[in-house]
Amino acid sequence: MIKAAILGATGYAGAELMRILSVHPDAEVVYPASHSYAGKKFSDIYPGMKGAMDMVLREDDISKAAEEADVVFLSLPAGLASQMVTEEVLSKCVVIDLGADYRLHSKDVYETWYKTEHHSPSLLDKAVYGLAEIHREAIKGSRLIANPGCYTTCSILTLYPLIKQQLIDTSTIIIDAKSGTSGAGRGEKLSSLFCEVNESIKPYGVTNHRHTPEIEQELSEAAGHGIVLQFTPHLVPMNRGILSVCYARLLPGITDEDMKKAYSIYENEPFIRLIDALPETRFVKGTNLVDISYRIDKRTGNVIAMGAIDNLVKGAAGQAVQNMNIVFGLDETEGLSIGAGSPF
Amino acid sequence: MIKAAILGATGYAGAELMRILSVHPDAEVVYPASHSYAGKKFSDIYPGMKGAMDMVLREDDISKAAEEADVVFLSLPAGLASQMVTEEVLSKCVVIDLGADYRLHSKDVYETWYKTEHHSPSLLDKAVYGLAEIHREAIKGSRLIANPGCYTTCSILTLYPLIKQQLIDTSTIIIDAKSGTSGAGRGEKLSSLFCEVNESIKPYGVTNHRHTPEIEQELSEAAGHGIVLQFTPHLVPMNRGILSVCYARLLPGITDEDMKKAYSIYENEPFIRLIDALPETRFVKGTNLVDISYRIDKRTGNVIAMGAIDNLVKGAAGQAVQNMNIVFGLDETEGLSIGAGSPF
Amino acid sequence: MIKAAILGATGYAGAELMRILSVHPDAEVVYPASHSYAGKKFSDIYPGMKGAMDMVLREDDISKAAEEADVVFLSLPAGLASQMVTEEVLSKCVVIDLGADYRLHSKDVYETWYKTEHHSPSLLDKAVYGLAEIHREAIKGSRLIANPGCYTTCSILTLYPLIKQQLIDTSTIIIDAKSGTSGAGRGEKLSSLFCEVNESIKPYGVTNHRHTPEIEQELSEAAGHGIVLQFTPHLVPMNRGILSVCYARLLPGITDEDMKKAYSIYENEPFIRLIDALPETRFVKGTNLVDISYRIDKRTGNVIAMGAIDNLVKGAAGQAVQNMNIVFGLDETEGLSIGAGSPF
Amino acid sequence: MIKAAILGATGYAGAELMRILSVHPDAEVVYPASHSYAGKKFSDIYPGMKGAMDMVLREDDISKAAEEADVVFLSLPAGLASQMVTEEVLSKCVVIDLGADYRLHSKDVYETWYKTEHHSPSLLDKAVYGLAEIHREAIKGSRLIANPGCYTTCSILTLYPLIKQQLIDTSTIIIDAKSGTSGAGRGEKLSSLFCEVNESIKPYGVTNHRHTPEIEQELSEAAGHGIVLQFTPHLVPMNRGILSVCYARLLPGITDEDMKKAYSIYENEPFIRLIDALPETRFVKGTNLVDISYRIDKRTGNVIAMGAIDNLVKGAAGQAVQNMNIVFGLDETEGLSIGAGSPF
Repeated sequence: MIKAAILGATGYAGAELMRILSVHPDAEVVYPASHSYAGKKFSDIYPGMKGAMDMVLREDDISKAAEEADVVFLSLPAGLASQMVTEEVLSKCVVIDLGADYRLHSKDVYETWYKTEHHSPSLLDKAVYGLAEIHREAIKGSRLIANPGCYTTCSILTLYPLIKQQLIDTSTIIIDAKSGTSGAGRGEKLSSLFCEVNESIKPYGVTNHRHTPEIEQELSEAAGHGIVLQFTPHLVPMNRGILSVCYARLLPGITDEDMKKAYSIYENEPFIRLIDALPETRFVKGTNLVDISYRIDKRTGNVIAMGAIDNLVKGAAGQAVQNMNIVFGLDETEGLSIGAGSPF
Repeated sequence: MIKAAILGATGYAGAELMRILSVHPDAEVVYPASHSYAGKKFSDIYPGMKGAMDMVLREDDISKAAEEADVVFLSLPAGLASQMVTEEVLSKCVVIDLGADYRLHSKDVYETWYKTEHHSPSLLDKAVYGLAEIHREAIKGSRLIANPGCYTTCSILTLYPLIKQQLIDTSTIIIDAKSGTSGAGRGEKLSSLFCEVNESIKPYGVTNHRHTPEIEQELSEAAGHGIVLQFTPHLVPMNRGILSVCYARLLPGITDEDMKKAYSIYENEPFIRLIDALPETRFVKGTNLVDISYRIDKRTGNVIAMGAIDNLVKGAAGQAVQNMNIVFGLDETEGLSIGAGSPF
Repeated sequence: MIKAAILGATGYAGAELMRILSVHPDAEVVYPASHSYAGKKFSDIYPGMKGAMDMVLREDDISKAAEEADVVFLSLPAGLASQMVTEEVLSKCVVIDLGADYRLHSKDVYETWYKTEHHSPSLLDKAVYGLAEIHREAIKGSRLIANPGCYTTCSILTLYPLIKQQLIDTSTIIIDAKSGTSGAGRGEKLSSLFCEVNESIKPYGVTNHRHTPEIEQELSEAAGHGIVLQFTPHLVPMNRGILSVCYARLLPGITDEDMKKAYSIYENEPFIRLIDALPETRFVKGTNLVDISYRIDKRTGNVIAMGAIDNLVKGAAGQAVQNMNIVFGLDETEGLSIGAGSPF
Repeated sequence: MIKAAILGATGYAGAELMRILSVHPDAEVVYPASHSYAGKKFSDIYPGMKGAMDMVLREDDISKAAEEADVVFLSLPAGLASQMVTEEVLSKCVVIDLGADYRLHSKDVYETWYKTEHHSPSLLDKAVYGLAEIHREAIKGSRLIANPGCYTTCSILTLYPLIKQQLIDTSTIIIDAKSGTSGAGRGEKLSSLFCEVNESIKPYGVTNHRHTPEIEQELSEAAGHGIVLQFTPHLVPMNRGILSVCYARLLPGITDEDMKKAYSIYENEPFIRLIDALPETRFVKGTNLVDISYRIDKRTGNVIAMGAIDNLVKGAAGQAVQNMNIVFGLDETEGLSIGAGSPF
């Protein structure tokens, strides 16, 4: 039985992780922690888990967590993880960080986009970007896994085969992404109120959303050269789900066969479904799946590649468990759903 | 491995049953059937289940189903089940009917409220009302189980202890219930369109909803005398969930202690949570749980007892699996969720 | 042109009042005020009003407002209005208070339910309860109008004729009410977040909601004797709308004719629609209308009377304008909508 | 008083037109018609309009309508208008067609994209594309006005200044648009059910949506050369609203000043608001407004231009009234809202 700690267990991503681990056959939470609610039962904060997860929340103390747990999940605001993680911590446990602190290889890029200092740049080299479909082998032997962002998971996986196989003009990439409101977190902000979100859609972070450099980093690596792209997120009046609609110019002569072949890289991936229909976020809700499909437009010469995930599962907690499964040698799908009910 | 057939597998309740059984450790679907979609893959109709349940749908033929399966679930429009089920079918398999045909003990009451003929009244005596929390022992040995309705499950379980323990004036019962829109089914009706349901709430079936006699039957049995009560359902702009708010006058001298004691009848029930807070449907979403709480109003002399369920799980498919588990001697909670994620 | 001041112009009710007055043919806002946003343009806070209402917000100073305006609307948290309104203020302008401070005739009842001190009890006698359908004549000559609450407006108007005409047993009244989320206000509370409200329904304030004594006061007056009743509100995942479903035992011998006759008291009311169908909140959205209908249940002996309003219009800002129209001798419907678009 | 007929008065766009005209100071509906509901009262179909618009619906007979009305609005499925409108009809009344039949100048393009025959191609030359902000002068003298589509209105107005002023590379245009569900109409389709739309977002019509050639036609005209562009619509779980997010590469040397100057073409437009903030559909809900804003991304060299409208108002019924106002010499804003309440 893998012993798990979760620091930041009462945010939406942390709580989803608590829920998934509460029914995982080979892992158990031994150290649930929350700075805001330490001393309270988890199910007092999330009454839906009464009876299923009633542990008392502890302080966000990574040293204690590392003593008691085999794996420590961090689900914290930007900048905190980089203060907490040390070589010593990593000598005692595996760390899977759901936040952004170890995702970008470059301290400078991090500090530019996140506008906060990085406190442990020496660990950046040790961190593996935890997108199993691309970095599975590296994840296996890692002690520090940077769990990808929600928009980034969806966008990278949707575009990766096209870039890896050099099918598109990488200077023309535009990602228009849409997210459910849980992505905005549990903070008590005016802009997250029901009456401010419901019955409306809006773009935000246009030209400057923090997930941009993360997508660029991974796709640049796949391309073998630097990629600069356009990323625009939107807020949608629904609880969960991310849809990434990615546009790029096809290179001359690329055919549908080339496209199919490129995506066949995923054909044995347990969490990726290549579908003919267009993706809808409801069909991946509650699962760790990524639904991907594409259309070639002969009129314009563009390809439109589309991916959908559940932002709290494949975009956060589920992917973290997928990474835990990999590191600890379990079946990668253990404890994770691959079928979505509907309506849900 | 229990072999299961589902007739009516593509309605919302049937599809939820498909989903639950697809991950049940001791049961498997061998005969999924749909009159409308026979010949197609289940996952063509429910793309969220692609990869998880791709079986081809067959015709709604109970004879064939009974040959191949140990248990046949029926999720059909009113009146069809009573035409299909026969002694012969019951000699071959257990039937769990998610519809209304075998819930009411009286053919006359059925025909009055449902305005359709009952085709197998001789089987009514053999049917057991599948509310395990009340009829568990009878369910164990039954071949024909009438799975309760969604509103009725929630309302009966909320009120049952108060009636059983004679705490309330049974002539004063008012049930004001609210349901998510999946309760209206998958039919292509104007009144079920997004733009007709969204951003509104409405009562319907006032004084004449078909779940009324079902609630009255069970509560009358508990009381030992006939009960007539007021039941009013509402449509709420959400996918899932039922909330039953039940009002009744407390009998003289009844105390909070009496109330607590009455509800303690549920204290070992695996799916009932007695909570202090007021119930919210989100906290049972996706689970087979019933959250129940109550308030005594000293000003008015009333008790307000409140229950919440997921209409597609405890109100339909989950309860059907609970009944299957009981009949086949499995752990009652097998394959059923008892912890709700949030937001979901 | 009537000159209007609005203190508390940036709450949801205040902002709706700003919107209605911005297109009122015979009134204009001269003094819009907001404690939180003084110095900013109204349309900076409510961008939907850019170009339509760009006035700069001023401080919540009732003395200045009274100097400049003919009518001062107050849309403030409980307890503030009773500190602000004085004989001197009333000598200079009409005050229409959208809050609760002057609704209850009794200081004690107010302080018991609102748990805050009332600072100007001597004015309670001067205040008129601003429900025009019942107190129109008194409103005409009043300087201090207590605009009714949202649940109360809907519930009182639905039940009033039945009590006035003595058709029901007033000891059996139960009001089960449902409200859209704008009723919870614009405060940055966890419980008002989109992800905490969406896809769920919950009761709240069971046995102790502050609108209870207000409903009891008005219905007791109509009855000529004290009425104690059960009132239970619910939160619904929609922006606007209140539905009150009211239950009571019919007195012996009361017929449908009696019911019709009782409700005919409203037949010339410009904002009340007596409808045959059951009310749905969407059909009054954005209007100052009240849709009312009822059903007699011969089985139970109960009447179910149902009303629907828009909580921000007839339940707040619209009714305030209706009262202004009455006091200043305008057509009562001026500036108020009596037809609802759908879907909206 | 302008006399108006509406054929197709019970679809969502037609009904919104009925609502707007019911309170228009200088127009009145004299001939409301509906093929499906002829003989019934409009308010029987739209109960929200009871008391405000109770006229009996007549048959969709354009000859009779033309006899009785000064202006005939058509809100019909594609292909019907082109059968109905004749020179004779146009000699008797002005026709404003909310459908697509007269929007495209080319019969061939129409038949290719709409896959239906055009029955009156000779009238295409007489039709004016009713986008007042671009074709106001032509509208003034027209007898046949093709009211633009919803996506097209929003997308064209957002991009027009950039193309007219030659600021962008017109070969790189991508429009990613999102619409509320009323855009899918009132038909009883599975895909429009609440439970199929709610809590999800999906793209549709990728590479082949019918609004594509309409946008291309208008922007090509502005450019003075043919433009081919990418247009992708999405379905959003909300009643109303369209958001168009338009991407294009800026031409070398173009500055923010150039952008501002280009958009200043709209500075006297009564229905266009150039805003600094990013547009949100809620802020134009119920109004005839278009909110437009843009961002230049120096990293990518792209401009992101964003527009928001209410699809049933500026995208359909409101714009039709705007056109009527222009043709009949009224103030262009008459009867149309320019301030949005919130939350609505």
